[in-house]
Amino acid sequence: MPDRPQDLTALQVAIDAAEAVRGTTSPNPPVGAVILDAGGVVVGVGATAPVGGPHAEVMALRAAGSRARGGTAVVTLEPCNHTGRTGPCAGALLEAGVARVVYAVADPNPTASGGADTLRAAGVEVVPLTGTELVERGPLRAWLHRQRTGRAHVTWKFAASLDGRSAAADGTSQWITGPAARARVHAERAKLDAIVVGTGTVLADDPWLTARNPDGSLAARQPLRVVVGEREIPSNSRVLDDAAPTLVLRTRDPHEVLAALSDHPDVLLEGGPHLAGAFLAAGLVDRVLAFLSPVLLGAGTSAVEDAGVGTIGQALRFHRESVETVGDDLLLSLTPNFPSPSESSEKNHTQGAH
Amino acid sequence: MPDRPQDLTALQVAIDAAEAVRGTTSPNPPVGAVILDAGGVVVGVGATAPVGGPHAEVMALRAAGSRARGGTAVVTLEPCNHTGRTGPCAGALLEAGVARVVYAVADPNPTASGGADTLRAAGVEVVPLTGTELVERGPLRAWLHRQRTGRAHVTWKFAASLDGRSAAADGTSQWITGPAARARVHAERAKLDAIVVGTGTVLADDPWLTARNPDGSLAARQPLRVVVGEREIPSNSRVLDDAAPTLVLRTRDPHEVLAALSDHPDVLLEGGPHLAGAFLAAGLVDRVLAFLSPVLLGAGTSAVEDAGVGTIGQALRFHRESVETVGDDLLLSLTPNFPSPSESSEKNHTQGAH
Repeated sequence: MPDRPQDLTALQVAIDAAEAVRGTTSPNPPVGAVILDAGGVVVGVGATAPVGGPHAEVMALRAAGSRARGGTAVVTLEPCNHTGRTGPCAGALLEAGVARVVYAVADPNPTASGGADTLRAAGVEVVPLTGTELVERGPLRAWLHRQRTGRAHVTWKFAASLDGRSAAADGTSQWITGPAARARVHAERAKLDAIVVGTGTVLADDPWLTARNPDGSLAARQPLRVVVGEREIPSNSRVLDDAAPTLVLRTRDPHEVLAALSDHPDVLLEGGPHLAGAFLAAGLVDRVLAFLSPVLLGAGTSAVEDAGVGTIGQALRFHRESVETVGDDLLLSLTPNFPSPSESSEKNHTQGAH
Repeated sequence: MPDRPQDLTALQVAIDAAEAVRGTTSPNPPVGAVILDAGGVVVGVGATAPVGGPHAEVMALRAAGSRARGGTAVVTLEPCNHTGRTGPCAGALLEAGVARVVYAVADPNPTASGGADTLRAAGVEVVPLTGTELVERGPLRAWLHRQRTGRAHVTWKFAASLDGRSAAADGTSQWITGPAARARVHAERAKLDAIVVGTGTVLADDPWLTARNPDGSLAARQPLRVVVGEREIPSNSRVLDDAAPTLVLRTRDPHEVLAALSDHPDVLLEGGPHLAGAFLAAGLVDRVLAFLSPVLLGAGTSAVEDAGVGTIGQALRFHRESVETVGDDLLLSLTPNFPSPSESSEKNHTQGAH
């Protein structure tokens, strides 16, 4: 059965509610929930509270009160069935008299799943949506990745000229991209668990690696700053100031880095080029955010070096999730699409000779 | 007065007609014309015939016949007023009894201009459009550029990975972009007057530099192939075959290259990186067509080298004309925006600390 338009509209509201709490709910997933009354009117919106607090469904039910009776709950994730720090959400929905529950993503967690079955057994109509991509790519992305793979989700972000340079010949790099792109990076940093850079980046740029508001003040939430590599960094490096916690790891091995970050499921890798190359070569980049500026440099530091590609057949090919303009810059979101089975046939393609 | 929607609709038809003959009309501009009858119905479409043949207005009037009387002519370029190989178009429009003439771009050529005045003096309503960008960036681009600057219009086209590489570490480059992007390049080649590459590209890739149809056959029209540089190229190089004429220039100076191409107003520069850098540094690139593939290489040949940029403040900044997806790849069209007065203030921008 195709998804009903009104369910998808409510789902978008639930996604926005979840996105607003992304980064504050760990180890719980950032979930959003919307309650519609029996007539289809939105009577409650909720999102996961910080750990120990109520889940999204309970927050939305509290807002809806008695108007939830006979209504519909639209949730980004299948309601949980287990009694952890809070009661099970399936039970709360039953108690509130909700007649219909719509959810986007099935709970992959074996101890929490089964909420849909519990609700069905109690006579509630339960509808899994098919259009779940916005949730899987959106607020639940890192949490789902960790549930499925057991390791953190790694986003490699880079900003470069159209000829792939992240700094000019003399090492200057401020700024290749414009203010809108930089604001976007800071907003994203504030929702992540850790930012990783190599010692080379600290030595070259002396970055703060903090998340800042548009007015330059520190954001309320700061990710863990992680510096990796075997070189010494000066004790007065900005990254060692007290604006946020910092972890210095004496390794360049991406697997060791992620092992040390087991409590940080959403990781942003910001460079430099050799560290990015090592993560890419190890297959440990789950998403690339490429900010491309309409600029040419013709010399300088490349955004990535030594990614293990020797010839065109080994090129790291990506699926383009989205492309958008951010001020004068372009932002591409990409996911790995390698090794691609179509690659070898592509090489033998004779159409369109050079 | 704002442009009338029906005039703009007819203009788009005229632009399409002009685009279809682009590359075949030199030294005349590729112009398109549409005749609407007195009731606003399209009764004739025409475009400039090859040199010696009729201009666009005459072609459209022939198609319209007596239905042009009391009608409107919509033309991409102001009708000419001079009697060259053909009679003046202004005269032909008067003779056909057209009551209204709408044109996009004023004729910058002093010997041909004045058509609008002649028509007005004869009692025709003459309307210059304000939304002329589609014409100026489109079919008339190279011709207008030459009229205004006296030199050829140079488009630098490159295809690269997201990290700005146009070949892998071992020199292989077939293919970074996909079949749709390559077909696009071949269609564009068929409309241009000359393709320029350096000897290094010939030695490394041995390209044909021909324009090919999607089935691989040679396009009806082939641009002049131009190889520039001081190195010797083998006599059996593909670029020296008989598929198209080829010019070998023993220079690397962009000014000398363009001087040698004075009969070729629409030039496509295809590389390599050092030649592209020399043209960019000389301020002789008028448009960049960047095909960006969702691929990372981490090593290999950069798309551009030595563009005269030593520090970020000297970065060559561009205005983004358009961005579109072509198969899996992105195509950006860019025009130079340097030296930019906003650049120095941008450098001192404190918002969004690193």
